[in-house]
Amino acid sequence: MEHKGFVDLDFVKLDIARNERRGFPEIVYAPPKTHLQLKKIIKEFRKHTDSLVISRLDYKKYQAIKNTSGALKYFRQARLGFIGKSLKPVRGHVLIITAGTADIPVAQEAAVFLELCGNYVERLYDVGVAGVHRLEHFKDKLKRARVIIVIAGMEAALLSIVSGLSRAPLIGVPTSVGYGAAFKGLSALLGMLNSCSPGSVIVNIDNGLGAGYFANLINK
Amino acid sequence: MEHKGFVDLDFVKLDIARNERRGFPEIVYAPPKTHLQLKKIIKEFRKHTDSLVISRLDYKKYQAIKNTSGALKYFRQARLGFIGKSLKPVRGHVLIITAGTADIPVAQEAAVFLELCGNYVERLYDVGVAGVHRLEHFKDKLKRARVIIVIAGMEAALLSIVSGLSRAPLIGVPTSVGYGAAFKGLSALLGMLNSCSPGSVIVNIDNGLGAGYFANLINK
Amino acid sequence: MEHKGFVDLDFVKLDIARNERRGFPEIVYAPPKTHLQLKKIIKEFRKHTDSLVISRLDYKKYQAIKNTSGALKYFRQARLGFIGKSLKPVRGHVLIITAGTADIPVAQEAAVFLELCGNYVERLYDVGVAGVHRLEHFKDKLKRARVIIVIAGMEAALLSIVSGLSRAPLIGVPTSVGYGAAFKGLSALLGMLNSCSPGSVIVNIDNGLGAGYFANLINK
Amino acid sequence: MEHKGFVDLDFVKLDIARNERRGFPEIVYAPPKTHLQLKKIIKEFRKHTDSLVISRLDYKKYQAIKNTSGALKYFRQARLGFIGKSLKPVRGHVLIITAGTADIPVAQEAAVFLELCGNYVERLYDVGVAGVHRLEHFKDKLKRARVIIVIAGMEAALLSIVSGLSRAPLIGVPTSVGYGAAFKGLSALLGMLNSCSPGSVIVNIDNGLGAGYFANLINK
Amino acid sequence: MEHKGFVDLDFVKLDIARNERRGFPEIVYAPPKTHLQLKKIIKEFRKHTDSLVISRLDYKKYQAIKNTSGALKYFRQARLGFIGKSLKPVRGHVLIITAGTADIPVAQEAAVFLELCGNYVERLYDVGVAGVHRLEHFKDKLKRARVIIVIAGMEAALLSIVSGLSRAPLIGVPTSVGYGAAFKGLSALLGMLNSCSPGSVIVNIDNGLGAGYFANLINK
Amino acid sequence: MEHKGFVDLDFVKLDIARNERRGFPEIVYAPPKTHLQLKKIIKEFRKHTDSLVISRLDYKKYQAIKNTSGALKYFRQARLGFIGKSLKPVRGHVLIITAGTADIPVAQEAAVFLELCGNYVERLYDVGVAGVHRLEHFKDKLKRARVIIVIAGMEAALLSIVSGLSRAPLIGVPTSVGYGAAFKGLSALLGMLNSCSPGSVIVNIDNGLGAGYFANLINK
Amino acid sequence: MEHKGFVDLDFVKLDIARNERRGFPEIVYAPPKTHLQLKKIIKEFRKHTDSLVISRLDYKKYQAIKNTSGALKYFRQARLGFIGKSLKPVRGHVLIITAGTADIPVAQEAAVFLELCGNYVERLYDVGVAGVHRLEHFKDKLKRARVIIVIAGMEAALLSIVSGLSRAPLIGVPTSVGYGAAFKGLSALLGMLNSCSPGSVIVNIDNGLGAGYFANLINK
Amino acid sequence: MEHKGFVDLDFVKLDIARNERRGFPEIVYAPPKTHLQLKKIIKEFRKHTDSLVISRLDYKKYQAIKNTSGALKYFRQARLGFIGKSLKPVRGHVLIITAGTADIPVAQEAAVFLELCGNYVERLYDVGVAGVHRLEHFKDKLKRARVIIVIAGMEAALLSIVSGLSRAPLIGVPTSVGYGAAFKGLSALLGMLNSCSPGSVIVNIDNGLGAGYFANLINK
Repeated sequence: MEHKGFVDLDFVKLDIARNERRGFPEIVYAPPKTHLQLKKIIKEFRKHTDSLVISRLDYKKYQAIKNTSGALKYFRQARLGFIGKSLKPVRGHVLIITAGTADIPVAQEAAVFLELCGNYVERLYDVGVAGVHRLEHFKDKLKRARVIIVIAGMEAALLSIVSGLSRAPLIGVPTSVGYGAAFKGLSALLGMLNSCSPGSVIVNIDNGLGAGYFANLINK
Repeated sequence: MEHKGFVDLDFVKLDIARNERRGFPEIVYAPPKTHLQLKKIIKEFRKHTDSLVISRLDYKKYQAIKNTSGALKYFRQARLGFIGKSLKPVRGHVLIITAGTADIPVAQEAAVFLELCGNYVERLYDVGVAGVHRLEHFKDKLKRARVIIVIAGMEAALLSIVSGLSRAPLIGVPTSVGYGAAFKGLSALLGMLNSCSPGSVIVNIDNGLGAGYFANLINK
Repeated sequence: MEHKGFVDLDFVKLDIARNERRGFPEIVYAPPKTHLQLKKIIKEFRKHTDSLVISRLDYKKYQAIKNTSGALKYFRQARLGFIGKSLKPVRGHVLIITAGTADIPVAQEAAVFLELCGNYVERLYDVGVAGVHRLEHFKDKLKRARVIIVIAGMEAALLSIVSGLSRAPLIGVPTSVGYGAAFKGLSALLGMLNSCSPGSVIVNIDNGLGAGYFANLINK
Repeated sequence: MEHKGFVDLDFVKLDIARNERRGFPEIVYAPPKTHLQLKKIIKEFRKHTDSLVISRLDYKKYQAIKNTSGALKYFRQARLGFIGKSLKPVRGHVLIITAGTADIPVAQEAAVFLELCGNYVERLYDVGVAGVHRLEHFKDKLKRARVIIVIAGMEAALLSIVSGLSRAPLIGVPTSVGYGAAFKGLSALLGMLNSCSPGSVIVNIDNGLGAGYFANLINK
Repeated sequence: MEHKGFVDLDFVKLDIARNERRGFPEIVYAPPKTHLQLKKIIKEFRKHTDSLVISRLDYKKYQAIKNTSGALKYFRQARLGFIGKSLKPVRGHVLIITAGTADIPVAQEAAVFLELCGNYVERLYDVGVAGVHRLEHFKDKLKRARVIIVIAGMEAALLSIVSGLSRAPLIGVPTSVGYGAAFKGLSALLGMLNSCSPGSVIVNIDNGLGAGYFANLINK
Repeated sequence: MEHKGFVDLDFVKLDIARNERRGFPEIVYAPPKTHLQLKKIIKEFRKHTDSLVISRLDYKKYQAIKNTSGALKYFRQARLGFIGKSLKPVRGHVLIITAGTADIPVAQEAAVFLELCGNYVERLYDVGVAGVHRLEHFKDKLKRARVIIVIAGMEAALLSIVSGLSRAPLIGVPTSVGYGAAFKGLSALLGMLNSCSPGSVIVNIDNGLGAGYFANLINK
Repeated sequence: MEHKGFVDLDFVKLDIARNERRGFPEIVYAPPKTHLQLKKIIKEFRKHTDSLVISRLDYKKYQAIKNTSGALKYFRQARLGFIGKSLKPVRGHVLIITAGTADIPVAQEAAVFLELCGNYVERLYDVGVAGVHRLEHFKDKLKRARVIIVIAGMEAALLSIVSGLSRAPLIGVPTSVGYGAAFKGLSALLGMLNSCSPGSVIVNIDNGLGAGYFANLINK
Repeated sequence: MEHKGFVDLDFVKLDIARNERRGFPEIVYAPPKTHLQLKKIIKEFRKHTDSLVISRLDYKKYQAIKNTSGALKYFRQARLGFIGKSLKPVRGHVLIITAGTADIPVAQEAAVFLELCGNYVERLYDVGVAGVHRLEHFKDKLKRARVIIVIAGMEAALLSIVSGLSRAPLIGVPTSVGYGAAFKGLSALLGMLNSCSPGSVIVNIDNGLGAGYFANLINK
């Protein structure tokens, strides 16, 4: 049943007016939805909009729904499904930095999303503070960036370090990487929140998409 | 003793190169410093830079140090000290919204800082979700804003609401307002981190200055 | 062995007097009980009462015990087993609202229970605050409701929003939906507890049945 | 400046339409407001509505503002200020039970509020589970009650006990009474949330007003 | 290698003098030990002592080691292994009460241990506070008991109730039973610690053995 | 108003039957009570019972109420008020051990209470594990004791040590002594709960009285 | 691509200059890396350095990568992979003590690492405080040690005990051993942090490698 | 009363053998002790040993006890009292680094203690990561140091940074500096525990003395 601004499938109210209202189509969060629900959502959306993002779509679920639409592209490491035309890169550089190898899936979620939205993306992975000289090697990248996303677990000191070296706005993503007193990302979350250098903000633990979405908003 | 980029007063290393490196002069955090230390810092900074921001400067401490420099301006509700020329507003609108009256001091810290940096600032105080129709009345302000700062304690639902209504990037500041299970801002912090609508980021509890600093970075 | 008011099966004391004392038969919580124990309980109860509710009965357990009594009805999404006559709806409307699709199983637990007890139930699923305009579309439902149950995870702002729009008593059910700093429902629990608008109360995380039970109590 | 539904005093947006929308005038939360702000609020409200509730108004603040309006009544133990006509008791009995003497101020906040709204209120103080026989003595009161509010700190077992003895809907208010592992009400909050007997709901720690407001909603 | 008071098997130091020093042989905690390690421990102990208790021995592990000694008895629900002569009951009654069916395995761990040590044990299972009248039926058992162990999860109010009704020393065992805000036993632990009635003490979450050991110590 | 088993003063229900029911008169917890309330309680109790214990009675409050009854004795370090005849020591030795000097007030609360009830009490203060040889010097005391109370803050290792050296039942009292990660007694509480040696139980943080009460129960 | 001091494989920046800068080659943390990534890392490192440590390498992963280099040695209990020449023991004794059997894998991680670096290592396992006399038997080992590592879970009292008996610097490793209120190592962590005896420091929960690394640094 | 190895003043057992046993005289922790108790301790100690350290001695308490012994020296910022001969510096350099000005009192506690024990101490205050170039200026100090103590609050990233730059063993001291989500040092504690670079250990929050004590142990 279609209402003004949304379509009612009972188990979900598809927000087909979001693009107009917020400048971006709705993003469907896959984990709680069944295969059948995702298929219905894809079919219904295709009647109303040209593009659709499905987040946290694991490979198995993707396999189950991929026949729903031939237009569905899938980015495995980023766990993103996408229907639509990805834009040509016309916006400034967004630099995505990770502290370690384990943070890369979260980084890819941000990176792929940003590229689909037409941003130039540079990746700089595994430059954590255990060897901060590695970071210094890439000073040019730091300078060129219009926005920087810093993705780190454990004590997440990398956000503070980058913050001290750059003029660009910084978005921190704490990750659930680590063990023991890392407490599933709590340690990184508190570390980033208390970063002693201004100019940075944070999003939820492991929320690469949220960081990418915000970076896209402020990168013009 | 002066070194390349900073001056060493033993108890503090003044970062006189920060303006050049980060595009903004150092911000001195007043609470842990004695009157004498603040006076020495002000005097030394004045030799090297034109402007200086002192944060969380309570009224009593201000009284004790105000004779150090005739150029020291004081904003009581925002607890900010400032030396320098405030810039003419040339940047886009930053809208600062609070959920309640109790959030105003944190809001003023952000607002005054942004005005000193040359931003147009609009204030919209006490429009918490208990009466969300009050917010709707100000839709023009929401549209005009280039950046929005949302300041709220308790369950901090206001961030999610504004997020659903606006295209501008949103910065949430959880506050320590509330009682009982508000747990000194923890409830608001978790609420904002889990905001189900993308497009928002957060800073530390009660950190109005951090939000203002970041808003200034992205408002052009 | 039967005592005044209860039957003693050693591993369980069946409270056959609860209906008389509290106006409602005992509800058997399935998870810690073995198949054999559940079968014994069903058989014994049937000697004393006409109706019985079994909660959190997963499908596999249901399969194992369904032969015990031909009268056993099963509601899979709600994970409820029921023996007895469900009442005709004669009570006022109870409106059950969820923020997202993931909250539906908890909602169904409340909804099915309320329908068995003779309440009119209206469902309004997936109207979370990311698109609060969807909620406004259903203002008639909000007005018609005599009691409203709001079921939400993450920051659970939906309770505050509905609270500001309605005169009916509200019952909030925080859910364990979300990731990262949602901390298995803690974030939603604190958010609902700190709801800044009066007129709402809450039950335990994911406790759809408790909300349904209470709603039935106050809906006349 | 007056808008549709509210008056804008800058530091506060007075919700003068709340009575019409929610069936109850706005409740002003006193703690974060200065004397001057409270005075302005009282004056402005008096132009638009007949009645006003001010909560958590401590005695000192009351002394400072009492001259603003001769109509201001004050209930010291309940820390409530009130302007308006209290209603004659026409609604059913609300029974307010406390576990100990220390819980009485929270109980009085609920009780006075309910009496102002026209409810019969019965008080039953200090019947905690250390001597549960005291509770049994008052079985008549338990039966007569249409709604029961249970106020308890420490382990808050009283809610479960009363729940097992009564048919009326129960509202639990955990209090910050206790020491050591009571953790400022956290212990009572968790105890009440996990009450193993259905039919009860809870509000925030020490939130007597919230319990009273909800009880008034459901007592007809 | 044998030393004064213990035998050194490198991976474990068997405390063969504990019986003499503490009045009870060592209790071997099975979970972290491999099958091979448990077998070596049993063989070595048998050279030095007549009796041995193995705790938290799950059924699978028991199957793997049962051939080590024909004298090994196994109590499945209690997850206890035992070698030695169980004593005739000569000590006073220990009453073991559980709130629900889910608490029975923890109760059995205490009960079997106590019986092995020569205590009369009475079991009273599933008399939680949701139907406190069930408890009253067994007042004789309460009076006869020399020591009472109360085992409960969720809000654990049962300890406070029994405490108000009895002269015997009470030992509370919080269990990890429950869901949502039960937080794996934390809620029950805090509830029991804050029991407002004196005369009770507690042991660790799910620690039935610890409660049994202590009850044996004080029951003469 | 006097009822069967208790007297109703409205703000408090005096449990005058507790002695008969539980073998000990009620203990009045002073902190939440006003001077006037304490005076009324003392006067009323004196009509019904011979003895009364008032706990956590600070010196200032004692000064305010001491004229109520000439029979009121006061123990300042233990913060205990007492009316009645203290019993001659006829019971076995209770040994009270503290880890440090800071734990002594909690220890005295237990010690004085036990002496009033007719127990021999031995004090052994400041023998914390930093110099465990001090403890060994007092092995005779350890052997003589029928019950041992161990009072310690910080990591509370003393309970485990004493547990390994003694046959007597042990009662641990974690204290809020310490700084930093001691978290107001949480560290000591967890340490004592996880004591790896069986034979010990615990009470709430700083609850000397609870430990004394329990020790009295089991010392015959 | 090789840069000054590191090699860039995109997903990882190999810190080939760490040996020169920090006196020790990089340690590769295996868990987040795929088989392919580990193989690439091993191959690249071998071009630049003689030795390499791979930590938390479980047996299955080791099987998958062992063909990459014939020089790869594997220590299963310690979960360590190693390429290079282990040094002859020339440094002083490091004594590694565990409270229980369950702590041995963490201890072996430290022990093997220290032996590879040329330290004499003595192991003293299962001497927890439940039988502290076992520890006293090994006083010679305590005296001979130049550094002591204490590894314990639950309440972790062993660190305090050893601290009181020794002059050597102590490194505590809290482990996640235990159940209930052990909270996955939190209890042991807090216990060790609050150890009341100076001369000890700690590392993260289960971090045997970190303790070994530090012990190697200070053992000369 | 004097025993072997200690003197018993009832409220305290003076450990006069600690110097012999542990290589260092006892350190008296002042906060829980009364003026009278401190005076007695000082007098008694002076009969047995030449030197004594009193920690956390605030200025007011010092004033009250300073007449007890003319030999008592006081270090106000470090809150240390000392009797005895401070040793000539003969040991290697210990470098003490703070992130900010607020960390200086904790640093001074470590520094003064180390100087009294005969260590060369270098101070490097206020070089937090917001301006990490300040740290690089002092590379010589980093190289010269035999041991480094890093003292930082908030996110405590400084420990990781220094760890990546130095070969010396590092001791981290998290401080309770900060606000909001710093949670009184918890954030810094978790940050330091999760430092991703090996070679560092930590002590309790604000425990400058513990860090100094340990540094003295390993600096030869």
